[in-house]
Amino acid sequence: MNRNDRTKLTSMGHPVSEAPDRIDRRTFLAHGAAVAGAAAAAGLASGANAQGLAGQPWERVYGAGFTGYGQPSRFEQPVMRHIGRPYGDLAPGSGAALAPIESLEGIITPSSLHNTRSHSGMPDIDPKQHQLLLHGLVARELTFSMDALWRYPMTTRTYFVECAGNSNRALAPQPAQVPAGAIHGNISCSEWTGVPLRMLLEEAGLQPGAKWLLAEGADSAHMSRSIPLEKALDDALIALYQNGERLRPEQGYPVRLLLPGWEGNMSVKWLRRLKATDGPTHTKDETTKYTELQPDGRAQQFTFEMGVKSVITKPSSTMKLPRTGLYEISGLAWSGAGRVRRVEVSADGGATWADAALTGEERPKSLVRFRLAWEWTGGEAVLQSRATDEKGQVQPTRKAWLAQYSSANIYHNHSIVSWAVEVDGSVKNVYV
Amino acid sequence: MNRNDRTKLTSMGHPVSEAPDRIDRRTFLAHGAAVAGAAAAAGLASGANAQGLAGQPWERVYGAGFTGYGQPSRFEQPVMRHIGRPYGDLAPGSGAALAPIESLEGIITPSSLHNTRSHSGMPDIDPKQHQLLLHGLVARELTFSMDALWRYPMTTRTYFVECAGNSNRALAPQPAQVPAGAIHGNISCSEWTGVPLRMLLEEAGLQPGAKWLLAEGADSAHMSRSIPLEKALDDALIALYQNGERLRPEQGYPVRLLLPGWEGNMSVKWLRRLKATDGPTHTKDETTKYTELQPDGRAQQFTFEMGVKSVITKPSSTMKLPRTGLYEISGLAWSGAGRVRRVEVSADGGATWADAALTGEERPKSLVRFRLAWEWTGGEAVLQSRATDEKGQVQPTRKAWLAQYSSANIYHNHSIVSWAVEVDGSVKNVYV
Repeated sequence: MNRNDRTKLTSMGHPVSEAPDRIDRRTFLAHGAAVAGAAAAAGLASGANAQGLAGQPWERVYGAGFTGYGQPSRFEQPVMRHIGRPYGDLAPGSGAALAPIESLEGIITPSSLHNTRSHSGMPDIDPKQHQLLLHGLVARELTFSMDALWRYPMTTRTYFVECAGNSNRALAPQPAQVPAGAIHGNISCSEWTGVPLRMLLEEAGLQPGAKWLLAEGADSAHMSRSIPLEKALDDALIALYQNGERLRPEQGYPVRLLLPGWEGNMSVKWLRRLKATDGPTHTKDETTKYTELQPDGRAQQFTFEMGVKSVITKPSSTMKLPRTGLYEISGLAWSGAGRVRRVEVSADGGATWADAALTGEERPKSLVRFRLAWEWTGGEAVLQSRATDEKGQVQPTRKAWLAQYSSANIYHNHSIVSWAVEVDGSVKNVYV
Repeated sequence: MNRNDRTKLTSMGHPVSEAPDRIDRRTFLAHGAAVAGAAAAAGLASGANAQGLAGQPWERVYGAGFTGYGQPSRFEQPVMRHIGRPYGDLAPGSGAALAPIESLEGIITPSSLHNTRSHSGMPDIDPKQHQLLLHGLVARELTFSMDALWRYPMTTRTYFVECAGNSNRALAPQPAQVPAGAIHGNISCSEWTGVPLRMLLEEAGLQPGAKWLLAEGADSAHMSRSIPLEKALDDALIALYQNGERLRPEQGYPVRLLLPGWEGNMSVKWLRRLKATDGPTHTKDETTKYTELQPDGRAQQFTFEMGVKSVITKPSSTMKLPRTGLYEISGLAWSGAGRVRRVEVSADGGATWADAALTGEERPKSLVRFRLAWEWTGGEAVLQSRATDEKGQVQPTRKAWLAQYSSANIYHNHSIVSWAVEVDGSVKNVYV
């Protein structure tokens, strides 16, 4: 079957970046009218409706007053995180809440919908009582109150946080027919502000033998991970603010470690302790979990960096295309190694590819939004995206990725995602 | 009095931008230890505290479960918008709610705390019923349902929105001793995603005589403004998403106009109608309001672009420095004309200036965060910031700005803001 006969991918060339010098306005102008025209032809717009001007009910009543802290429209209430609690009511705070990426746009994830993974629930921390201890192989032990940390010099950067177990639901024997976020939404992106960890380590002074850090959370599980010192001295942040306001409780309030591009669980939340050590501590969290089973039965430890990855969020699993015509294919791409350089999109299950436009690709270790115009002419199609990062790493096919591991491995699945469009317009999760 | 003797400004040289090639890591390393050391000497950190390791109450209980839509910590509940209702209970939805910029960090304003101005309250709009009409001097009238608009090709950009009346409280005879946001917080910044207005206008087709647009909201005041066509065809957005999720009700849900860099009221919320016209409509909202009174009593109309401006948010009015030592001065800068190129900071009321480090200056018409280390040695100080934009425009002194207008003018105050630090560490709003 030649699916390509019935679908058509077009690089629209609309604005691709926040840096205006990367906007190819001429291309936009040349293609813009055609895109919109096609949309109109597909019934996206119709003739003027006098009803609209007559006035809706809300135009005839005085509106609601101001709120100190706003909330979404009541019509958007269904947009919620996808909550997975593998132990049910036995341990209601153990599991993950995934971002509803199928309902979101742009790059920033609203803090209220940011993915979260916790091992023993979300502690209710009083910032006046919480302290961060820096000890071990240091010249002098230091204890930081939150009032002290909040006065330190800060830096602001946009970074994604992805759980090592994101997309493990895509390893089930049969493809789950659930929204994209319920499978691939253990990823989010925020503007983080905090103190460079390097600054605190320099204040404490590292002893010559210090090679690693133990990071420990103040949750009742005392979630703990070992961090190589090189990362701590590179771009690690002691994060205090997220998207402008102080961290949310489920993101580690009042203070978390943030290790850009690395497995989310290493960015230890509710951070209470950093201990300089001469080697990894081999905590329960890095031996019983967060290792990748190999085909020979051995476990690979300390796979820190998240692989280059992308997922189409629109259209995606459980959606339905109402009619033939022009659609924007849009999705998210990222790489733990740095910047995303390219995202290609296929509508024929990987036989042919077209380059998508990117927004935010100037930011390393951030989500990037990709967009591409696609004309659906009514036939079957299989939509895929494939990301390439600045180190030349290319997102692998599902088959190639699976071949690297034992079938019991559940971490670091960054393989290509496939959505099938059926002739009635319904979009299904498929394994290709 | 030579205030400079007792205060010291230092350009710390910590990471200044999201673009890593602009990070001067050598400078950071050279200064980092000194900065942190000074902080320790000022009592920001102290010796290890065994109490911390013994465990806080929240470490001994299983934490809370997951939420579909998260909220801030209960300890952050005081961080609220500053609500101004000039007509009190007579018109509770007429006025403004200002962002608490004194409590925020980074560049993005959380949508829940975004500034909002409304003229007759916040309508409760059902997106299934709402339509956008495009008519007037067009080849064909078009009506867009929300379902149609949500399928159009989109673009994502970060822009500030500032009310024309921001900082008008700084024109009161005596300086108000209130937090910075209650005076200067009618400014916020979001990542906006929407359809380029140009695309819809091209789909409708403009008649040769079309020179302006009338934009009208679906609030009960039918807030309306005239927009020059050049702006509509340049960077205007039909905004549908804000910081990743759909627009908040107070930001125009389900659809608003967004005119980057221009007076906030022109970015008409709850947009229901765009009419192509041969000239400005002179609506009630642009004749009774949003004009600047001149010294000769005449009103200047159609001052669209917001001037280059900055404000120090930390430390700021009503705060208190707990002790002498090193502090980070941090604040926000922006310009309706494009990028911020430079922010200078003074600690002696404008006698001497030092350049601050900038984050986000690559984004035109976005907030930019500036930071600078400052050593407070216990004397009086007057903190000021002065922004310069890419067109070379420099933020004026309060005196120079006032001289341009009638004393009754309340719009477009972008003059330099002054905070006085007293010997007891208290920070006061002053006119210099």
